[in-house]
Amino acid sequence: MAEHRFVPQSYWNTIGSHAPALYVNSGDTVETTTVDARGWDKEGGQAAARGNPMTGPIHVAGAEPGDTLAIRFERIVPDREWAWASDVLSLGVVEPEYVSRLPEAQIRRWKVDAAAGYAELEEASTGYWAGRRLPLSPFLGCFGVAPSRGQAISTATSGEHGGNMDYRGFVAGVTAYFPVFAEGALLHLGDGHALQGDGEIAGTGLEISMSVRFSVRVLKGCKSGWPRGETPDHIFTVGNARPLDQALQHATTEMQRWLTEGYGMTMQEASQLLGQAVEYDVANVYNPAYSMVCKLSKRLLPDVPVMS
Amino acid sequence: MAEHRFVPQSYWNTIGSHAPALYVNSGDTVETTTVDARGWDKEGGQAAARGNPMTGPIHVAGAEPGDTLAIRFERIVPDREWAWASDVLSLGVVEPEYVSRLPEAQIRRWKVDAAAGYAELEEASTGYWAGRRLPLSPFLGCFGVAPSRGQAISTATSGEHGGNMDYRGFVAGVTAYFPVFAEGALLHLGDGHALQGDGEIAGTGLEISMSVRFSVRVLKGCKSGWPRGETPDHIFTVGNARPLDQALQHATTEMQRWLTEGYGMTMQEASQLLGQAVEYDVANVYNPAYSMVCKLSKRLLPDVPVMS
Amino acid sequence: MAEHRFVPQSYWNTIGSHAPALYVNSGDTVETTTVDARGWDKEGGQAAARGNPMTGPIHVAGAEPGDTLAIRFERIVPDREWAWASDVLSLGVVEPEYVSRLPEAQIRRWKVDAAAGYAELEEASTGYWAGRRLPLSPFLGCFGVAPSRGQAISTATSGEHGGNMDYRGFVAGVTAYFPVFAEGALLHLGDGHALQGDGEIAGTGLEISMSVRFSVRVLKGCKSGWPRGETPDHIFTVGNARPLDQALQHATTEMQRWLTEGYGMTMQEASQLLGQAVEYDVANVYNPAYSMVCKLSKRLLPDVPVMS
Amino acid sequence: MAEHRFVPQSYWNTIGSHAPALYVNSGDTVETTTVDARGWDKEGGQAAARGNPMTGPIHVAGAEPGDTLAIRFERIVPDREWAWASDVLSLGVVEPEYVSRLPEAQIRRWKVDAAAGYAELEEASTGYWAGRRLPLSPFLGCFGVAPSRGQAISTATSGEHGGNMDYRGFVAGVTAYFPVFAEGALLHLGDGHALQGDGEIAGTGLEISMSVRFSVRVLKGCKSGWPRGETPDHIFTVGNARPLDQALQHATTEMQRWLTEGYGMTMQEASQLLGQAVEYDVANVYNPAYSMVCKLSKRLLPDVPVMS
Repeated sequence: MAEHRFVPQSYWNTIGSHAPALYVNSGDTVETTTVDARGWDKEGGQAAARGNPMTGPIHVAGAEPGDTLAIRFERIVPDREWAWASDVLSLGVVEPEYVSRLPEAQIRRWKVDAAAGYAELEEASTGYWAGRRLPLSPFLGCFGVAPSRGQAISTATSGEHGGNMDYRGFVAGVTAYFPVFAEGALLHLGDGHALQGDGEIAGTGLEISMSVRFSVRVLKGCKSGWPRGETPDHIFTVGNARPLDQALQHATTEMQRWLTEGYGMTMQEASQLLGQAVEYDVANVYNPAYSMVCKLSKRLLPDVPVMS
Repeated sequence: MAEHRFVPQSYWNTIGSHAPALYVNSGDTVETTTVDARGWDKEGGQAAARGNPMTGPIHVAGAEPGDTLAIRFERIVPDREWAWASDVLSLGVVEPEYVSRLPEAQIRRWKVDAAAGYAELEEASTGYWAGRRLPLSPFLGCFGVAPSRGQAISTATSGEHGGNMDYRGFVAGVTAYFPVFAEGALLHLGDGHALQGDGEIAGTGLEISMSVRFSVRVLKGCKSGWPRGETPDHIFTVGNARPLDQALQHATTEMQRWLTEGYGMTMQEASQLLGQAVEYDVANVYNPAYSMVCKLSKRLLPDVPVMS
Repeated sequence: MAEHRFVPQSYWNTIGSHAPALYVNSGDTVETTTVDARGWDKEGGQAAARGNPMTGPIHVAGAEPGDTLAIRFERIVPDREWAWASDVLSLGVVEPEYVSRLPEAQIRRWKVDAAAGYAELEEASTGYWAGRRLPLSPFLGCFGVAPSRGQAISTATSGEHGGNMDYRGFVAGVTAYFPVFAEGALLHLGDGHALQGDGEIAGTGLEISMSVRFSVRVLKGCKSGWPRGETPDHIFTVGNARPLDQALQHATTEMQRWLTEGYGMTMQEASQLLGQAVEYDVANVYNPAYSMVCKLSKRLLPDVPVMS
Repeated sequence: MAEHRFVPQSYWNTIGSHAPALYVNSGDTVETTTVDARGWDKEGGQAAARGNPMTGPIHVAGAEPGDTLAIRFERIVPDREWAWASDVLSLGVVEPEYVSRLPEAQIRRWKVDAAAGYAELEEASTGYWAGRRLPLSPFLGCFGVAPSRGQAISTATSGEHGGNMDYRGFVAGVTAYFPVFAEGALLHLGDGHALQGDGEIAGTGLEISMSVRFSVRVLKGCKSGWPRGETPDHIFTVGNARPLDQALQHATTEMQRWLTEGYGMTMQEASQLLGQAVEYDVANVYNPAYSMVCKLSKRLLPDVPVMS
């Protein structure tokens, strides 16, 4: 159960079977930093190329294809005092006829006070945003493990291996689970958001560099097909695809599998439970692959360990 | 502000410009009943043809195309002690490769105790459902106003006029708003569910007949493009289309219009607010048109009356 | 085998169970006219309300739910010398990022010479269109039978009953087949196009009034689920839905059913044939429901009568 | 203008910035072979890992990001006498309700006579396929250039870089154009099909190893965004995405750009031309990204060189 303080020296704009930057064991804890989506670090310097540069990869000893890797976030905290964000909706989330009604998007700066826990738009002396504060809810927009077949997949998108899911539910206290496709799993992480609504519908959250702390664990022989997760209150699955209908199919199928194969429910028991109690979160409708989250309250689960 | 007790004599399986069954004024309250999706009434008799038969239509004096009709639900309570529901997921919400893994769907009966506020699956002496109770959350799955152009649209589907949205958020205490397309608005309602998860992913909620009480109000000259709503905590819009992406586009565009045209925000102010604070609910992914709900917390709204 | 010359007195903007305007028998031939999509007739007068006004409905004696109605087009000829069309792509067929690059669409007039068989853009003295002629290929964009459940469906869209499919393959010499949902089938027709590319991607064809001649035939007990058709060389099926993927699913399933149930092929025989020989036409990607056509060469069919 | 006979020693299951296996100059001709989708070569041996293994990559001197690479196929000929194919439709091309009607897919062998130009199903002594021959139309299902950002993308899917488009129009005599993303372009090719219908709807064509001959040319400074092509009669563009609607958006936008930027047409001239004369081919609706082809007859083009 070692603790690693890892200072990234370089970053990747793809998630793939790159040379490990850090070797850890199952159960270890890692403390590190991530730069923002444009590669700006906590000083505001250009530490990496634009496009969700990743810290890592982190090689977790013993992880092999067919296993699942668990990442528990203990802390995700902005490590600078400003973020940036787009100020106009993404063109894909409005009706085609409305697109030319939208002004051209600009990047705006937000002041971020991590200690006090709020953000406010800079240069907003009048109008709606003057003096208005939004509470922070920091999470990582993009993280995951090396994908199958030796692929190196752009951090603009996502898949079975995770990636740019931009799910605002991945906050501290949550555990994410990924199917392992490559030896050592090869965890990559970055693209911190101090805050974001459902769907990342302006194309950005409040983009910021982060200080993060998490532990990893290899679940030997535990199979999963898509990213999964666990909060204090819920279990959830993530489907990444377009259209949203297909992302929902992946997430729902993965949840039905989890309930039947992991929790021992019959097909009908699980279907009836999901039919009357499932919750969905729209994670992102901006990236090349959209992300849909399928959630279930832990209060409704059979008394069986989660992910074993 | 009259009160009407309306006992339906006949039902419609389309929402259209049918002859009014009741005439009311803006501000009036109506107390009536709805049969379930198969036309079964509170005695279990076949009171109407299968397929979401509607109580109504109710003609609201003064409502004209270009206005908005507000319906505030004061009470939605099951009026019998059993519901029915499918026991297998809808085939469209799982991966095509998983479809043949699913057993054939059957209709199962649930015991419903409206006074105590719970439901439980009948004939479940062993397994997950034995002795398990789910709390009720009754709502109407299908309601809306006569659509444009003299259309009569099947209650299997939905559109700008409302219809079979199957949104579990339409509970008592919520106000729904519909664009008026025909003189008198011509409100239809039915398809009660004692409970349902997001998306209606088993193809049914707990299907049941209802006793309902609601008031109607004509908002003269108040324009809307898609169904809207208001809870104690949120405002919301509903988009109905396929794929889910397009339903989301309608709902998001309608919300952006509401914030800019109704609340006086600039395009950028509204975009930034939605970008960092919007919430989506997947209402249904089962009907011919899927339904997506775009929500915003009232705490974040400018201090302006909702819908005026 | 009577011949009917039918002069429309009124038009419908929905396809539904409206009062018949003409009664005919199976095998009869009808000669009539249609106004254009804006309701303009051969004199250019406003004969009907905008939005694909329909000639009809025509009641075909003996047609009942469960039957199929065949319509064989013998002649579809423009009956005036000009058409109109949009001059910019529909916003839904380009990438969202490209939408604001497109200029605002205008309606342009085209000169149509039905005898010589060509069209040319008016007021194009310079540039690409100066002196350029396109060969005509006249067809009806919108026609179909009364839908199920007493629905009245806008002529803007389409479904199992046909409607606004805007398929440029429905030219003279082609037979269309529709499932019958209402007594007498109740055929509606209109929305003539002198010419159109695949997909109706500018949102219009060359919109024009038409003189049409066709025969109708009731195929008793012959079941179909979606519109079908037959050219001298091919059989085809039409699926109407969004997204295009779903339209394709409907069309493909209907073709597989036709081959197995109508032509007696096994599932594998039909699948292998379609897999290596199917052709698709994108009929429309503009209307609320998109339309996809699944085609198969008659040379590849077993020696069995088409539709019996 | 050298001629290269290239005998592949190894194969890739991703398309990426792998070490070049062959260096050529613009204008050179290459003669080589490809193994089939399962890695079986002309002897039927397992020459490479399953999943569309690629011959290459071929480094074309001088090709840089911002250029376009042209590949003209001079010959694509099966180099063995049998192919394999699935015998049941892909589950994603039928209605979800129809999926469980389909039998389980099996792989079947076809006899292929390249000299005589036909294929026939083996072991079909009775029924539809007994004695039936289909004419060959050989093409490569998967080929393309190294994608942007150093990505290595699975040959199961496709994108701006080409890849597994499974477009049956890529026969001998056709020129394909790809945007260059990496130095040397890095052409990969494989996945030969002796025949296939539109859409690859059974999930395979007639899968076979090939002898291929083609020339490459670097178009310096010639920009393109998506794969393009040219037959003796048409020019075309390819969009790769899901749903099919989005693939169509990419292909249509790329064609509109080509007509306006390459052929000097105005937005309206190009829109009107496409509106009344465009043709679409459904290339594949089986792979993770679907492929749609947007085509235009060369007879309708201004008198300007294609791609310069």
